[in-house]
Amino acid sequence: MAEHIFKQFDLDLTSIHNRVLKMGDLVEQQIMTALEALMASDLATLESVISKDAAVNAMEISIDEDCQHIIVRRQPAASDLRLVLTVIKIISDLERIGDEAQKIARMGKTIFLAQGHSIPRFREIRNMADTALAMLRRSLDAFSRLDASAAAQLAEQDRQLDDHFAADLRQLITAMTQDPHSISTSIDTLFMTKAIERIGDHAKNIAEYVVYLVEGRDIRHRSHLGSG
Amino acid sequence: MAEHIFKQFDLDLTSIHNRVLKMGDLVEQQIMTALEALMASDLATLESVISKDAAVNAMEISIDEDCQHIIVRRQPAASDLRLVLTVIKIISDLERIGDEAQKIARMGKTIFLAQGHSIPRFREIRNMADTALAMLRRSLDAFSRLDASAAAQLAEQDRQLDDHFAADLRQLITAMTQDPHSISTSIDTLFMTKAIERIGDHAKNIAEYVVYLVEGRDIRHRSHLGSG
Repeated sequence: MAEHIFKQFDLDLTSIHNRVLKMGDLVEQQIMTALEALMASDLATLESVISKDAAVNAMEISIDEDCQHIIVRRQPAASDLRLVLTVIKIISDLERIGDEAQKIARMGKTIFLAQGHSIPRFREIRNMADTALAMLRRSLDAFSRLDASAAAQLAEQDRQLDDHFAADLRQLITAMTQDPHSISTSIDTLFMTKAIERIGDHAKNIAEYVVYLVEGRDIRHRSHLGSG
Repeated sequence: MAEHIFKQFDLDLTSIHNRVLKMGDLVEQQIMTALEALMASDLATLESVISKDAAVNAMEISIDEDCQHIIVRRQPAASDLRLVLTVIKIISDLERIGDEAQKIARMGKTIFLAQGHSIPRFREIRNMADTALAMLRRSLDAFSRLDASAAAQLAEQDRQLDDHFAADLRQLITAMTQDPHSISTSIDTLFMTKAIERIGDHAKNIAEYVVYLVEGRDIRHRSHLGSG
């Protein structure tokens, strides 16, 4: 199937395919850099993550325009069109993952400026972020190899990440109740874990678009992937 | 300009245009119903909002498929294609607004089940939701009339909504600090106001797509609309 679709790729489509993966690398890098800066309490690097989001946004607009040019120039048939429309959706989710990476950096900055110390519960945050990063990598790999089977694994990882977020929230509420002085910082870390949880949602979306691309069926909005 | 674009509409495009507005009506109704149910402490109606989100999702998939058929059948030129691609983006944001309406209902349900009483700070929530609803209506109206001027107003309203959210969050933190027993419910209302704030973000996105559609320039990711 992958081979079949790849054979229809012309240079334009190959270029777009590669640029999507490059954009994926950039947002992945943004998340990893934000986490390293959080661990190192490195405010300057957090600032660089915040300002670099503009590059992610510019990439989305540029790839989006290329996709439109391809549709106008090539007037693609159904399967090629599906690829181009899938790319338009994938880059929208990648752009939003970039926003979430920026949010993580912003919240880190807020905490450092207010508290002047390291991020509380960093180990939990790091664990959740590792799951989200693995999901992002898997979803991009699924797109790269046009592998529809990854979506089921992504759905399972997304459930784990949601559970992890819920468990973390319960711990956070307990901690806030025991130490009301920690509430403000706790809310900031809550926004951070929420951003990580949303990265997982976007990665799951990307894998679902790949299923649609490869199998021609829309599995979005199904609660259980195995049921269709 | 609106007339120019509308003259190119064939029946397919008119039908899609109308279905987007119908989808907009549905998500608007979902938000309003959720709010009325919150005010009336009406659990059954909150449940109906939660289950009705499936209808919003189905509409997105159906309109999305129609858009693809139009591209394949019509092989539209640049301006018509831009309309169809804009619709694909708008319905994605509408679908996410539907998700936020569902989240509001879910949080309401959680609070009623845990506390058995009315939503705390309902007046604030209602105020914010009224702004978000006005933004949604304005963005759909901008799409309906192909009015690029609405985007600047939407950007201003979005800033107000963000400020309102930030002010509300500060009040919430004070309330939690003074009464740690309220923390769990306060977090649930925080998720509710966050959902409302995101509805405003999506409405702003829709208005920005309309600018792109009408003027052919992409104003996403600009901090100040007047600068371009």
